[in-house]
Amino acid sequence: MTVPPTNGNAVLPQAIDLSHHLNSLSRARQPSPLKFLFKYAAIPNLLSFAGGVPHPSYFPFHDTTISAYPFTADPSSFPSNPTEGDLLPLLLPKYGSKGNDLATALQYGASTGHPTLVKWAREFTQEIFKPAYGDWEILLNDGNTDAWSKIVRLLLEPGDTLLTEEYTFPSAQAAWIPLGVTAVPIKMDEHGLRADHLSKTLAEWETTRPGVRRPKLLYIIPVGSNPTGSTMPAHRRQEIYDLAVEYDIIIAEDDPYTFLQFPQYTVGDKTAVVPQSGEDFKKSLVPSFLNLDTQGRVIRLDTFSKTIGPGFRVGYFVANPLFTERLLRSTEVDSQAPSGWSQAILASLLTTWKNSGYLHWLSNLRDQYTLRRNHLIDSLASSFDLRPAGSTAIPNAEGLVAFLEGSEIPVFSFVPPTGGMFLWLKFYLTESPNFKSFSAEEDPEQAFMTHLFEELATKATILLVPGAYYSPWQGKDKTTTAARGEELGVGYFRVAYSMATNEEMEEGVRRFEIVIRKEWEL
Amino acid sequence: MTVPPTNGNAVLPQAIDLSHHLNSLSRARQPSPLKFLFKYAAIPNLLSFAGGVPHPSYFPFHDTTISAYPFTADPSSFPSNPTEGDLLPLLLPKYGSKGNDLATALQYGASTGHPTLVKWAREFTQEIFKPAYGDWEILLNDGNTDAWSKIVRLLLEPGDTLLTEEYTFPSAQAAWIPLGVTAVPIKMDEHGLRADHLSKTLAEWETTRPGVRRPKLLYIIPVGSNPTGSTMPAHRRQEIYDLAVEYDIIIAEDDPYTFLQFPQYTVGDKTAVVPQSGEDFKKSLVPSFLNLDTQGRVIRLDTFSKTIGPGFRVGYFVANPLFTERLLRSTEVDSQAPSGWSQAILASLLTTWKNSGYLHWLSNLRDQYTLRRNHLIDSLASSFDLRPAGSTAIPNAEGLVAFLEGSEIPVFSFVPPTGGMFLWLKFYLTESPNFKSFSAEEDPEQAFMTHLFEELATKATILLVPGAYYSPWQGKDKTTTAARGEELGVGYFRVAYSMATNEEMEEGVRRFEIVIRKEWEL
Repeated sequence: MTVPPTNGNAVLPQAIDLSHHLNSLSRARQPSPLKFLFKYAAIPNLLSFAGGVPHPSYFPFHDTTISAYPFTADPSSFPSNPTEGDLLPLLLPKYGSKGNDLATALQYGASTGHPTLVKWAREFTQEIFKPAYGDWEILLNDGNTDAWSKIVRLLLEPGDTLLTEEYTFPSAQAAWIPLGVTAVPIKMDEHGLRADHLSKTLAEWETTRPGVRRPKLLYIIPVGSNPTGSTMPAHRRQEIYDLAVEYDIIIAEDDPYTFLQFPQYTVGDKTAVVPQSGEDFKKSLVPSFLNLDTQGRVIRLDTFSKTIGPGFRVGYFVANPLFTERLLRSTEVDSQAPSGWSQAILASLLTTWKNSGYLHWLSNLRDQYTLRRNHLIDSLASSFDLRPAGSTAIPNAEGLVAFLEGSEIPVFSFVPPTGGMFLWLKFYLTESPNFKSFSAEEDPEQAFMTHLFEELATKATILLVPGAYYSPWQGKDKTTTAARGEELGVGYFRVAYSMATNEEMEEGVRRFEIVIRKEWEL
Repeated sequence: MTVPPTNGNAVLPQAIDLSHHLNSLSRARQPSPLKFLFKYAAIPNLLSFAGGVPHPSYFPFHDTTISAYPFTADPSSFPSNPTEGDLLPLLLPKYGSKGNDLATALQYGASTGHPTLVKWAREFTQEIFKPAYGDWEILLNDGNTDAWSKIVRLLLEPGDTLLTEEYTFPSAQAAWIPLGVTAVPIKMDEHGLRADHLSKTLAEWETTRPGVRRPKLLYIIPVGSNPTGSTMPAHRRQEIYDLAVEYDIIIAEDDPYTFLQFPQYTVGDKTAVVPQSGEDFKKSLVPSFLNLDTQGRVIRLDTFSKTIGPGFRVGYFVANPLFTERLLRSTEVDSQAPSGWSQAILASLLTTWKNSGYLHWLSNLRDQYTLRRNHLIDSLASSFDLRPAGSTAIPNAEGLVAFLEGSEIPVFSFVPPTGGMFLWLKFYLTESPNFKSFSAEEDPEQAFMTHLFEELATKATILLVPGAYYSPWQGKDKTTTAARGEELGVGYFRVAYSMATNEEMEEGVRRFEIVIRKEWEL
């Protein structure tokens, strides 16, 4: 395993000065004066009466063993009555033991994070993502929600604009909307955010938005986009990174689904997925924006939520040292550090599995979600006539278009997702006779989609997420489909395939078809 | 156990409308639109394709047993080779088990917190603190640092003033200083913050601070104050609460040391501490501000950091429902929820111990810290001549004054702490011949105390915390002892007795005495 280059590395460039991106809050943060005391910790024979911390001998826990599975375990069928060899016991020894004992984990810990876990994250980032500059740092956080909130507090000022994907995660929006920040959504296609539209938006900024501050931050979920499921290929990333350099933009790469990248879906392909070696798995991944980042303008957000468990509430930033230092100051006064239990268990699991084992686990896990994606689309194919978009005359259609069987009425289309947990269905409303009855509404598209959502939830008893939730907030004058300049006559639902069983998918699609026929058939 | 009154309770008053205290950020927060979907969850036979969450069957953990100790275990001597009866195994069963299984804990959880833990906190708060209004709520957070940071984001606007104790916790300050908020410190005595000075400060506000916005928030650590160690008795709390009502002030009661309340220290008293029954232990506690709060203007911060372990990163707010709702909106977009491991382990431990057991544990733990306090003061008594302040002629002295043995030179005084982890030493500098050599400095007190700190750290190799760290930030024009209007000719150190062994305390005091003699003797 390669140790990442340090500050002194002459091969890779160092991060450029990006301090002008810090907002006034993050500039004003000071280190705690108590940190000043740390430099005395090395004095030989020192007796410290400084730390106001509970004595770790009083934590009421003995040697504890966490029962994990080895990385070779099949995530789709863990043994229900495991024998000794089926399990991987992770020992967290009691206070007074050598090494990373439980009492250390349960004490106040460094806000930089559990040293073993930080070291793991450094080495893993170097092995998998290979940043293109030398002095990047790792800083642990409480998962990507916490991380994004910290980035908002690091960079955005009230009234700023923010570049987002055309459709983006509502919970991420909830962090910046209350600041009075508005989104500038950039159009997407099957490869994610469109570089041509980003370029046009930035080039024409002063003429289309006179007097509005230029955006300095792009928020993006480039693998298994939430909600669209798209994964951005390398060439598109390079185009976007080049624009970020040209227009001095920071890229926040929120990448929880990075290890859930699937092969293309083929209609009717019943080939089982084949586990890959760690090396082949690595090669199957699109490069992170980090891998293009020669200047340190990418803040990458990694998390264990989709790969080990969201309840850990542990993730990490990979960013330039200026940003991680300011984020550390913020961490010291809010989350302080992730849970000691979470950190100790993760550190033990990952160092025991080793990187090759973790990659093996990820490869198996990715296959599980690939099969889920396949089964949901296969189920749709059994109720609808799915045709390649190119074979139809529908404008802007990508991927597959679903027609009612035995008719020429297109109902919806979708791009089979190449990552993540979601199918993003685009509905063609103009062919629905019922849609016309909403034409007098202020926002006919949204009114009809709300109606359709209600029909699906209460009549078919299947719950999808209305697509309107993913339209970025652009301010109070842009709350309708037309006002936002979005395509008219269409609407969206997000369909998650991560939780339903195969049988539930089949049954759900059958129920879905009944409502759709009612709404679309004359 | 009494179930707390609900909104419909006619016996206790409901919280009054305090919505004018919310800042613009917290007012602007919106619930996530995804929450809207929750109301459909009760539809019979519903198939949900809404949640974008990993499948819990893939979390790589089997039935796991956490090895805790029973509440009867002596925290000063846990068995090193325990037999079965010495341990309390807490089972966290794997995915698919009935009840609170591990897979539920490791999934995304409600931001309100683990239901069992929330229920425990409600019942425990009612049993111990007995709020004086009816519709209070519990909201979990990631510990008091996180909690205080969330209160700052809930209530304070840039440029606001904040009421604090005369000496307060630097890490709490680090949350509000970058906002441009300045402190208005209120004088303290051996009972903590002085109501008479609070009253005077508020009554004379417009004349002493013309044009400055009135403070609306008081931050206070009323038990085992950090740094002074003082604990505020009930009558003082009532006076302060009445002022809060009169001047419409919110009280943030940061109370990590609430279960570490000690009996008075008596010089030379070698009586061993005696464990109390749960009922006697409860009676020994001063009432929380909650117990006086008929209007819902107290936000109480409770944590497990000092009683179970800081590494859990779990605490909880007790507050009026308006504030907990706004804090929940904030929680959803940052910490999201405490670690599932931490919550599940705490929930299991506390419900297994039961409240009576937890009180037993707390009583034992309190005794350990009482013995530590006693030993540190006993050690000081063996090197210095400790006299009751009243028997000396020193102005403003409280508690005990330490004279160099065989001399009439008073060096420092302290009030034996009645809670927490700290001794707060007040040094009389004017008797030190060396102090005079600093008289030309901008801030002679701070310059001498920094010198003394360095001497102690590098010559005596004992580390204390300089008292200046605890002076609240009042702005750039008040950075010296004189400019802040603090008492001249004195200085402070905070001494923690939570970590050192008895032998280290004795050795530390011997080393301390050598430096003090050098600095104070002619």
